[in-house]
Amino acid sequence: MSRSYNFAAGPATLPTGVLETVQKELLDYQGTGTSLMEMSHRGKIFDAVYQKAVSDLRRIAGIPERFDILFMTGGASTQFALIPLNLSGSNRKAGYINTGAWSKKAIEQAKIQKVNVHEVASSADSNFNYIPDSFDIVDGLDYIHMTSNNTIFGTQFQKLPDPGGTKLVIDMSSDFLSKPIDWTHIGMAYAGTQKNAGPSGLTVVVIDKDYYDREREDTPTIFRYSTFAKNDSMYNTPPTFQIYVFGLVLEWLDSMGGLKGIQQHNESKAALIYDVIDSMPEFFLGHARKDSRSLMNITWNFPDKELDPVFLKGADEKRMPGLKGHRSVGGLRASVYNAMPKEGCQALADYMQAFAGEHKK
Amino acid sequence: MSRSYNFAAGPATLPTGVLETVQKELLDYQGTGTSLMEMSHRGKIFDAVYQKAVSDLRRIAGIPERFDILFMTGGASTQFALIPLNLSGSNRKAGYINTGAWSKKAIEQAKIQKVNVHEVASSADSNFNYIPDSFDIVDGLDYIHMTSNNTIFGTQFQKLPDPGGTKLVIDMSSDFLSKPIDWTHIGMAYAGTQKNAGPSGLTVVVIDKDYYDREREDTPTIFRYSTFAKNDSMYNTPPTFQIYVFGLVLEWLDSMGGLKGIQQHNESKAALIYDVIDSMPEFFLGHARKDSRSLMNITWNFPDKELDPVFLKGADEKRMPGLKGHRSVGGLRASVYNAMPKEGCQALADYMQAFAGEHKK
Repeated sequence: MSRSYNFAAGPATLPTGVLETVQKELLDYQGTGTSLMEMSHRGKIFDAVYQKAVSDLRRIAGIPERFDILFMTGGASTQFALIPLNLSGSNRKAGYINTGAWSKKAIEQAKIQKVNVHEVASSADSNFNYIPDSFDIVDGLDYIHMTSNNTIFGTQFQKLPDPGGTKLVIDMSSDFLSKPIDWTHIGMAYAGTQKNAGPSGLTVVVIDKDYYDREREDTPTIFRYSTFAKNDSMYNTPPTFQIYVFGLVLEWLDSMGGLKGIQQHNESKAALIYDVIDSMPEFFLGHARKDSRSLMNITWNFPDKELDPVFLKGADEKRMPGLKGHRSVGGLRASVYNAMPKEGCQALADYMQAFAGEHKK
Repeated sequence: MSRSYNFAAGPATLPTGVLETVQKELLDYQGTGTSLMEMSHRGKIFDAVYQKAVSDLRRIAGIPERFDILFMTGGASTQFALIPLNLSGSNRKAGYINTGAWSKKAIEQAKIQKVNVHEVASSADSNFNYIPDSFDIVDGLDYIHMTSNNTIFGTQFQKLPDPGGTKLVIDMSSDFLSKPIDWTHIGMAYAGTQKNAGPSGLTVVVIDKDYYDREREDTPTIFRYSTFAKNDSMYNTPPTFQIYVFGLVLEWLDSMGGLKGIQQHNESKAALIYDVIDSMPEFFLGHARKDSRSLMNITWNFPDKELDPVFLKGADEKRMPGLKGHRSVGGLRASVYNAMPKEGCQALADYMQAFAGEHKK
């Protein structure tokens, strides 16, 4: 069977081996005569799947014991609402680093909940094509929120900033588990799994155990992080199938050499495409500043917008879907998350070269 | 391959044909070279899956045009929190029918949000073994909430009550799409899909379009029903795989003769087990009153609790897992949702007969 190279921004490519395991076990999970997705979340079999996913994640991502690992639903957009509700209960003062669309949505949701938002850094002055390298120091913040990778603009923090006296709350949705994580300054990190770690429908939250006493009294039970922590993420029925697939992705990550291995893999993949861009900077107009480039989402425009549909049509014919850029930047975007094979990036780089040969003036 | 007969209360059995289709298409959805779960939710292929699921549901369940159909996540527990937030914004006065555990949780969440809760009917006086047949009339309620089927106690509304001047908001999680629905008095109905309609991780909400103007101003965007309505449930990434499987379950429902067909199927299935209970009422102590019996969850105790593990062990050996009763009732519970085949109910009925022959004094 011939698999496409799918460059969509998410949901995105999964490791072929993971999909093969899911397929094999679909009607009969390990000889039980039942699909994993038909099983009670309170039963021993699913519990083993859950426990292994949690402990594998802790080991692979090097998550210190001061953090709980929660499995939730609703994506980053739900976290944008839950973070002010849970972490800014009484003080109501928080910092936000604005690196574009997703950061802005997070800021809006904090403001709706009457949090006093300090935009401590922003790259709005240049259509978010870079990551700010410093930020305002403000006293008494509950947290500083940031987006580690911006899918739309193709920018990524190369290293985490030092937030001074407070802690970082990080939306890692689009570069979760793509490289080692330094937990020193992190208070909470979260990610929808649908880009680097599984299908859509699961949100992984890594949260400092000290954060639960900030919850507001009138917060509904299901909106409290402590509810998930106290109940092993099973206060109600979790998305069992997603947790299962996430667990398989973690096993695949082990086979790739963990986060250090996958980082090397991702660097070498992205280099194939950035090298083409850099070899013809007047034809491939990279959006992100070089020092802020994402290893996950590579964005560029052609000098002539009319080339966009021509490029996309050719890509579709070569079974490389998903390359259309977001409307905020236009042009093209190649999303090359963990599970995109190097062959896929090579195929795209080759196509870009050939396309330039044909259309460059 | 030998499939188990899985009597778990949810997540629960799915139609074998649905699982076979998922398995077949897992790595290559309809010749695209991509798994459905790897595809962008903004693309044409997933959009067709989404549109068909919505229109099939509307047709099969006879949902009038005054309702929107929303795909959400977070299960009934999230709805318990969202309903007061969205439907009781200013008036803050609502009725709740209390038929046990799930109703009680819904009531608690309304109270946390300072809604003036009127418990208009309750069967708490008799460990929730019946469905109340009338309720207090209270003026000025925003809605009356009820649970159409109680998984724990094995009770089910045989027909929907007439709520007088207000409308019903119904948690249908455990009998959704198991029989025709009379929408006359319904303002909103919702269900997690993991019992009758798919894997866990998707919540279907059917809501009257007139309800959106009750939302409170400080409600985060992702917690508003109107956000899902305005964005075809794609304000953010939906659980695409679950929507796909839900769509396949709807096609299977068509093949079963729609909701009338499945109702007959469910009645004949449940009768096999209730007939055994009624033939030996001193050995199989049915929990639910006969006029309130659920077609979905059949609950009973043995005269001697020590028989419970003996029965369960024998059932496991016959590959009939999931029969342990909930701790609130004890004893046994057979969950026989839509996708449980008649052969499964027959196998259980046969086993109950044989077990009685061996253990009845």
